[in-house]
Amino acid sequence: MRGNHFGKMLSMTSFGESHGPAVGVVLDGVPSGLKFSHDDLWQCLKKRAPGHIKGTSPRKEDDCPEVLSGIFEDQTTGTPICVIVRNTNQKSQDYEHLKENPRIGHGDQTYLDKYGVRDHRGGGRSSGRETIARVIGGYFASLVIPQVKVTGFSQKIGPFVFEGLPQSLDEGFGAYGFPIPEEEKKIEQYLLALQKQGDSVGGRISLVVDQLPSGLGEPAFDKLKADLAKAIMSVGAVTSFSYGLGERFAELNGKDAILERQNFGGIEGGISNGERMIMTVTIKPTSTVGKSALSGRHDPCIVPRVIPVLEAMVIFTLADHYLRQQAYSTRR
Amino acid sequence: MRGNHFGKMLSMTSFGESHGPAVGVVLDGVPSGLKFSHDDLWQCLKKRAPGHIKGTSPRKEDDCPEVLSGIFEDQTTGTPICVIVRNTNQKSQDYEHLKENPRIGHGDQTYLDKYGVRDHRGGGRSSGRETIARVIGGYFASLVIPQVKVTGFSQKIGPFVFEGLPQSLDEGFGAYGFPIPEEEKKIEQYLLALQKQGDSVGGRISLVVDQLPSGLGEPAFDKLKADLAKAIMSVGAVTSFSYGLGERFAELNGKDAILERQNFGGIEGGISNGERMIMTVTIKPTSTVGKSALSGRHDPCIVPRVIPVLEAMVIFTLADHYLRQQAYSTRR
Amino acid sequence: MRGNHFGKMLSMTSFGESHGPAVGVVLDGVPSGLKFSHDDLWQCLKKRAPGHIKGTSPRKEDDCPEVLSGIFEDQTTGTPICVIVRNTNQKSQDYEHLKENPRIGHGDQTYLDKYGVRDHRGGGRSSGRETIARVIGGYFASLVIPQVKVTGFSQKIGPFVFEGLPQSLDEGFGAYGFPIPEEEKKIEQYLLALQKQGDSVGGRISLVVDQLPSGLGEPAFDKLKADLAKAIMSVGAVTSFSYGLGERFAELNGKDAILERQNFGGIEGGISNGERMIMTVTIKPTSTVGKSALSGRHDPCIVPRVIPVLEAMVIFTLADHYLRQQAYSTRR
Amino acid sequence: MRGNHFGKMLSMTSFGESHGPAVGVVLDGVPSGLKFSHDDLWQCLKKRAPGHIKGTSPRKEDDCPEVLSGIFEDQTTGTPICVIVRNTNQKSQDYEHLKENPRIGHGDQTYLDKYGVRDHRGGGRSSGRETIARVIGGYFASLVIPQVKVTGFSQKIGPFVFEGLPQSLDEGFGAYGFPIPEEEKKIEQYLLALQKQGDSVGGRISLVVDQLPSGLGEPAFDKLKADLAKAIMSVGAVTSFSYGLGERFAELNGKDAILERQNFGGIEGGISNGERMIMTVTIKPTSTVGKSALSGRHDPCIVPRVIPVLEAMVIFTLADHYLRQQAYSTRR
Repeated sequence: MRGNHFGKMLSMTSFGESHGPAVGVVLDGVPSGLKFSHDDLWQCLKKRAPGHIKGTSPRKEDDCPEVLSGIFEDQTTGTPICVIVRNTNQKSQDYEHLKENPRIGHGDQTYLDKYGVRDHRGGGRSSGRETIARVIGGYFASLVIPQVKVTGFSQKIGPFVFEGLPQSLDEGFGAYGFPIPEEEKKIEQYLLALQKQGDSVGGRISLVVDQLPSGLGEPAFDKLKADLAKAIMSVGAVTSFSYGLGERFAELNGKDAILERQNFGGIEGGISNGERMIMTVTIKPTSTVGKSALSGRHDPCIVPRVIPVLEAMVIFTLADHYLRQQAYSTRR
Repeated sequence: MRGNHFGKMLSMTSFGESHGPAVGVVLDGVPSGLKFSHDDLWQCLKKRAPGHIKGTSPRKEDDCPEVLSGIFEDQTTGTPICVIVRNTNQKSQDYEHLKENPRIGHGDQTYLDKYGVRDHRGGGRSSGRETIARVIGGYFASLVIPQVKVTGFSQKIGPFVFEGLPQSLDEGFGAYGFPIPEEEKKIEQYLLALQKQGDSVGGRISLVVDQLPSGLGEPAFDKLKADLAKAIMSVGAVTSFSYGLGERFAELNGKDAILERQNFGGIEGGISNGERMIMTVTIKPTSTVGKSALSGRHDPCIVPRVIPVLEAMVIFTLADHYLRQQAYSTRR
Repeated sequence: MRGNHFGKMLSMTSFGESHGPAVGVVLDGVPSGLKFSHDDLWQCLKKRAPGHIKGTSPRKEDDCPEVLSGIFEDQTTGTPICVIVRNTNQKSQDYEHLKENPRIGHGDQTYLDKYGVRDHRGGGRSSGRETIARVIGGYFASLVIPQVKVTGFSQKIGPFVFEGLPQSLDEGFGAYGFPIPEEEKKIEQYLLALQKQGDSVGGRISLVVDQLPSGLGEPAFDKLKADLAKAIMSVGAVTSFSYGLGERFAELNGKDAILERQNFGGIEGGISNGERMIMTVTIKPTSTVGKSALSGRHDPCIVPRVIPVLEAMVIFTLADHYLRQQAYSTRR
Repeated sequence: MRGNHFGKMLSMTSFGESHGPAVGVVLDGVPSGLKFSHDDLWQCLKKRAPGHIKGTSPRKEDDCPEVLSGIFEDQTTGTPICVIVRNTNQKSQDYEHLKENPRIGHGDQTYLDKYGVRDHRGGGRSSGRETIARVIGGYFASLVIPQVKVTGFSQKIGPFVFEGLPQSLDEGFGAYGFPIPEEEKKIEQYLLALQKQGDSVGGRISLVVDQLPSGLGEPAFDKLKADLAKAIMSVGAVTSFSYGLGERFAELNGKDAILERQNFGGIEGGISNGERMIMTVTIKPTSTVGKSALSGRHDPCIVPRVIPVLEAMVIFTLADHYLRQQAYSTRR
């Protein structure tokens, strides 16, 4: 009820502050008998870690996951899986000035309004480290529906824009998740310059889902588009969600817009139709700007780092709906 | 688990097909002792009914709500409130051709994929009549937080666009919900022409929330922006959601975007900050176009009729979070 | 959150006061494609209705169920099923004296403590008519797992006691649900005498489940025994729940008690083991005694009428767990 | 959905196997600003630990709790609280023989039926160590409603029986939780003798709640008696639950049973009435008997060790309902 629980048949309960002992997650509803790989899980976490991408946060986080339960002899057992990641890079004193100075655009003041008390160190619970739980969740969700492929890429980072869809999604993308490899060097230089100025920039992410079976999503309130919107909008810094033609529908007549099934981004009547699913998301500029941004522990653009988090939220939502639908199948 | 239940402390369970005996809703969690007015409830339903707006569906629906439980001597009793609306205007035979011809952009095919069977008459469960449940829910939510004011207006209907915010939200708007009264006549003519051509058009709706207390919304997954996105994206025909500067954040540098609190649309760190809340929503063109649209039972643009449904979903979500927050207040 | 919602994959949302327009229930999660029979449903309701058993309440309730949604051409469609039963036998004035005189053992005073207001007529929400929702739920649950057979019988009605299990459960039992047909006449006379004295009496019910597959129930909190206990204890007048040897385990040594699998009543480690399941339940004497019981609208013993309600709660709980387990089956 | 989550406004998500790295729990919904004491928490855990009571399991478990989140400067922050306890006393090889020999009365076979795989070491998830999560939950629940006092005592351990209620509940009880201190020595000798014979014995526990406000519990399905029954029956080895006069109601006439408010054990109409609440619970003999019990790592009677677990489940359930009721209070 306090917003730390996500999903129904497949659920994750997230916990942890950036400067407490650990962040972590309890996964419940992962079916038994799935093959677990600690290496693969760690690999997922590395993608979202700062310090690996130039022009993003220089903090190093090892983020080695420790599995506390639910795995036996490299298999899921069907019991709850708790994974924690220790916070090893805590410098609480770096944040001492925040105790009295809540920052605009962060949750500093609203947390105080809400709870009356607050762990002010590094954003506490609203820190980006909370997304570790989501990425772990995404890893386990991908074990549930291994056939489904979710791919995110940077559609826009400041002035760098890619229209349409990449020819192939199979090889993945570079450090900035941008589909034109030749531009990656320029993006790097652009972001390093921004960082020096204590400035930041927003962008856009596209998410593509392939091989999703039809029939997922529930009518009325739990439409697939609704649950995906919630999943994605629950990530900090995301300020818009759309699917299919999205905002462009406002500019179109029905005769032009309706007759092509692909315009609906894989969802009709709130339910997956078996086609490729496409979503687009806006990321706002990092909230830390000006003098405090110059301390050197900040990302001028978090678009690349948000991609694995959004991919995780999408696959998690889809796996949850997959299990829900499976419950009601009436082969008897 | 089948998506017909919405909300936690305040919840609604929606039921009913367009061509069954009735549609309705069970409201649970409405506190006791609130004054109920059957007239006010009916008034809410009339706003969403077709047939009242030229250039929208000419069907007449009386939609007189019948309260089956939870109200005693014009007061809420704290027990579940069931309200139904009989379906009086059913012409099942009008839809007989749909039995074999699922329409693109509706849920016709996906429902079949999902359930194996389907009530094909008038969209069945995916009919717009399902939104009656939501509007009833919105009415009761407004009893819970009467001080909070949610106002939606048409920001765009085809070529008619209104930028920014109306000077006053107090007087309400005309039949099309467009903030420039002089344009309403032109919109009417535009839509009647579209209807003749068997065409339809999309648009955009703005939603403004005033007098919302700070501290609502939960960190991590139940951020206010996430729950509002889900509430709104769960309405048919909505294809995008954004709040605050929304999609424009992708174009902005942090120094320009971050320092103005109002850019965040009333939400920081996922929690309400006490400021005015602003959201923007895209509505796709009505899916019924071409020959079948000429039968005369269709809306060329549902933007005006969606407004009261979205207002209801917003106030419902906020009332739910209000009760959640109240549960944890620690004055003892 | 206000306690009117039961079940997870298969859920029912109950509503209605005894003297409002109707009582009813919304069933969600009933799989599509199941054959529905209005006659069978009505038959279920007749079993719990008063007026059919001498020595129980002489009120007549027709209880003809009206299906408002979710059924199309005598099949479940997978959408929510709302069924209501009109309250036709309301004599609100009979209860006027209760307005100021809350009765001991009913919820009269506690409802007032809880809500501040209360529909005092006939117990309002705490009336036995609320169980109509449960019996309807049980009917639909039996469509989900038709192979599972739940049978309740009167193990004790006042001085009439039946030890052990009937030889056959197939033929059902008489009006009092007592396994010795010859005793039914005596029970009738006993209860009629009690009624004349304005007195009432308690009893015990046994519930037997056959053909339940193994593997149902969840470790930790949702053990089958826990969810069955909740289901059964949620029925008014039930004051104890046990399964297997139940209370007798307190008298036994492990060497005597443990080695017989049947002592565990079909549940080991909280999970069904495929054996016959046995539960025992205490029903307290009807709370209405003395002068107010002489008005003639009261049951001296509700044991027989509670049986179909308990059977419904048991099959509902089992069907819910059946769907839960099905969600996680990993044949891919 | 897999049964590891308990509670609504106040919830706990339990995880961990007896022979994995750790067991633990995530508490969500603990209000902010409550004073936390690591010592008090540890003290609670020590009460349930084996090895402290002669004639119960001689295993030593240190059970030092490690708080991973949600506490800042010895205060709850309103964010989720994760507490883990490392498993330090794991001798997996002791259980190697169980791999092929599922034990009757444990979950050995049913887990296998359910999941297809199983961590056979020490009962895995169905081990008594899982109750550590519950005791931690109970500690935090007691911070939420510190005025409410829950006291459990041994009403019966084999042949030792205590009828009625102790004169005072304030001083607590000895190692066996038996209200007659002089008998404790005899109980010890009795249990040591049982242990030598490889036998075990069942018993009964009484639970008393004082200072509970009236108005807690919800009509219909979430009656206080139903939620307490579920909470208590979810603990391994519990085979019956009753409240108030419980099973004795089956022997009584209404005129004798109904007119005394105290017979209802503090609950009327499913809602607390402000009186003392009384519950009675049966504990079956420990399932490990015979040769395997002689290995020396087993409890001949777990009644004393279950008491703190049941107390925790009761206070947790009550605190959850307290927060639920607080959400709906309508002072505005």
